[in-house]
Amino acid sequence: VDGAEAISVGSELLLGEVVDTNLTYLADELARVGLPLRRSRQLRDARDELAAALREARAASQLVVVGGGLGPTHDDLTREALADALHERLAPDPALEADLRRRFGALGRPMPAANLRQALRVPSAEAIPNPIGSAPGWWVDRDGSVTVLLPGVPAELRRMWTEQVAPRLAGRFETRPVHRRVVRAFGIGESAVAERLSAVLGMDDPVSGIYARDDGIHVRFSTRGDPSTLEAPVRRAIELLARDCYGTDRTTLPLAAVAVLEARGIRSLASVEVGSGGALAAILSEAGVAGSMRYAGGLVRAPDGGGSPPPADVLVTLALLPERHEGVSPAEIALRGALGEVQRRVTVFGSGPQRLRRAAFGAIDLLRRAAAGAP
Amino acid sequence: VDGAEAISVGSELLLGEVVDTNLTYLADELARVGLPLRRSRQLRDARDELAAALREARAASQLVVVGGGLGPTHDDLTREALADALHERLAPDPALEADLRRRFGALGRPMPAANLRQALRVPSAEAIPNPIGSAPGWWVDRDGSVTVLLPGVPAELRRMWTEQVAPRLAGRFETRPVHRRVVRAFGIGESAVAERLSAVLGMDDPVSGIYARDDGIHVRFSTRGDPSTLEAPVRRAIELLARDCYGTDRTTLPLAAVAVLEARGIRSLASVEVGSGGALAAILSEAGVAGSMRYAGGLVRAPDGGGSPPPADVLVTLALLPERHEGVSPAEIALRGALGEVQRRVTVFGSGPQRLRRAAFGAIDLLRRAAAGAP
Repeated sequence: VDGAEAISVGSELLLGEVVDTNLTYLADELARVGLPLRRSRQLRDARDELAAALREARAASQLVVVGGGLGPTHDDLTREALADALHERLAPDPALEADLRRRFGALGRPMPAANLRQALRVPSAEAIPNPIGSAPGWWVDRDGSVTVLLPGVPAELRRMWTEQVAPRLAGRFETRPVHRRVVRAFGIGESAVAERLSAVLGMDDPVSGIYARDDGIHVRFSTRGDPSTLEAPVRRAIELLARDCYGTDRTTLPLAAVAVLEARGIRSLASVEVGSGGALAAILSEAGVAGSMRYAGGLVRAPDGGGSPPPADVLVTLALLPERHEGVSPAEIALRGALGEVQRRVTVFGSGPQRLRRAAFGAIDLLRRAAAGAP
Repeated sequence: VDGAEAISVGSELLLGEVVDTNLTYLADELARVGLPLRRSRQLRDARDELAAALREARAASQLVVVGGGLGPTHDDLTREALADALHERLAPDPALEADLRRRFGALGRPMPAANLRQALRVPSAEAIPNPIGSAPGWWVDRDGSVTVLLPGVPAELRRMWTEQVAPRLAGRFETRPVHRRVVRAFGIGESAVAERLSAVLGMDDPVSGIYARDDGIHVRFSTRGDPSTLEAPVRRAIELLARDCYGTDRTTLPLAAVAVLEARGIRSLASVEVGSGGALAAILSEAGVAGSMRYAGGLVRAPDGGGSPPPADVLVTLALLPERHEGVSPAEIALRGALGEVQRRVTVFGSGPQRLRRAAFGAIDLLRRAAAGAP
């Protein structure tokens, strides 16, 4: 009985109607506290199959996290399946039932009878309150294995995880947080990064990894030991990547660009884009919330469309040109205003929304480099 | 030995670094041909665990589709694991090796020695050529069970699935295509749809389901029998939903709106949005490619930003107001131009990007209703 595993319940996952983002969320959370998932699975709404999988998982793993199947309808069977696996009986919990009635009362609606199923509990389960939905979770600690049941609605699962499950895990298991540092670069390829950083990569501890993302290359160093051992390789990586490095950890490319613009006394920014479907405006709108600089707005134009962008200190223009080859497009990026006139032509790899986002990040990187006076 | 299952290979899936979209793709494809997944799992790059899972899956299912672990590096172990599970030996396939050398030659690069691993094959595997990457897939038909290995890169997996695996499946299994029709509505809730359609839902065949999506409610009817049995319930659902129904099947809400606008002689459209981060411009840009009406462009503005949208026959304005309650925002939508002045205030549920997209679809629905002369 060792390690952690996850089970996502719902026929919709196996019919391709829904992407299992709960798995990704839980996997990331568990890796961060040093209880990484060994495996995971998706199961349909079939009581016997769920019960068999739960029995097997509880025998193999010290932690089993289950998402989904806690709703009020007849095909929500996770409670019944876990009761089967534990050989325990479901019975109404008066406190849970009172909570449910209060909840519906506050919404000014009578509680449908079906919801009474959500007040059922087995003796060894402690309820995990759900502040934003009608399905309470369960925490079952028996036979040396903990099983956590959470609703499948992502917002509910995440909130209950953060507020209630994560703290309990820290009390129950020897969580060993993984310390991570990420060095971020743009305008350089994955293999070029690997070459330039060969001196700091490939150690046993800290472990390192290189990942290509829409906003550039992420180099990650991680350790379960002393976090100060991360400092030296991070510092060296920043030096070696030089102007291609735009920040570390939570410093996104837009935040990095905004910081350099602010240091230059630039207080507002506007954008024009052609052919990128609003990708630049979307990214800058998000960043505009986080940064202190004002994103005055963007104009998303057809090639022959008119209109004018909001006035601002700097205007960034991105024009994605018609595609030349499979997966490769040229784009033209220009800056005007407080930074003078700067222009660049770039090649954008990828397809679909990813290609548009990459082009937009290319424009934001030009902004960062121009404001920093770097080529 | 019955049914189908899927295995996704890669430690990154279990560390929360990547979402398993291959699973969703394969699940949808298999459901469409009547070989729906019974279960699926994600496994890390560990040869023994992979081999054990493959052995178990091949004993339980007539079709096992595996994505990932076919790369050239030391942690790509799917080939070895399947060889272990089959008790067969890997040996270089001269034809695969020649293909690989040709591929690298065409790129003007020498082939790294590591890539030779991708030319290995067991005797019972037939190679599945990869037209856009270096990893060939495998098709293994032995002991009454078919195992398909595909690379984890989504573009490669999808292309190889469509061009090569799907046709082979049709020859090997009794595929029974599922016939589906979808009736789409906006401006009405899930439970209200269920009530209004009670006469046509809940039959055994065609099976029906109701799904809430950003672009409204989708009501799906499906059958493995005679597709003409779908016609009557679809027609009846359209009648019962009346003006809330905007189309069926592949008719997206923007396409439906564009069709009504075109019928009214409106040839161009522009947008202004505040607080929705370019969601409206993004959706209309996409639709602008598909429809024949011109999307002149959109202005994505800060509340106090200036600028002007491109000139067009109709201007749609969406302003998302500051959030009032958790998960609920009010929005104001206005139309001006060829449709006269129309205004509406709506409530938008959800959080994050979903909330923004829902608000944008609300604006597009107002456009559709106004153009149709409906309230």
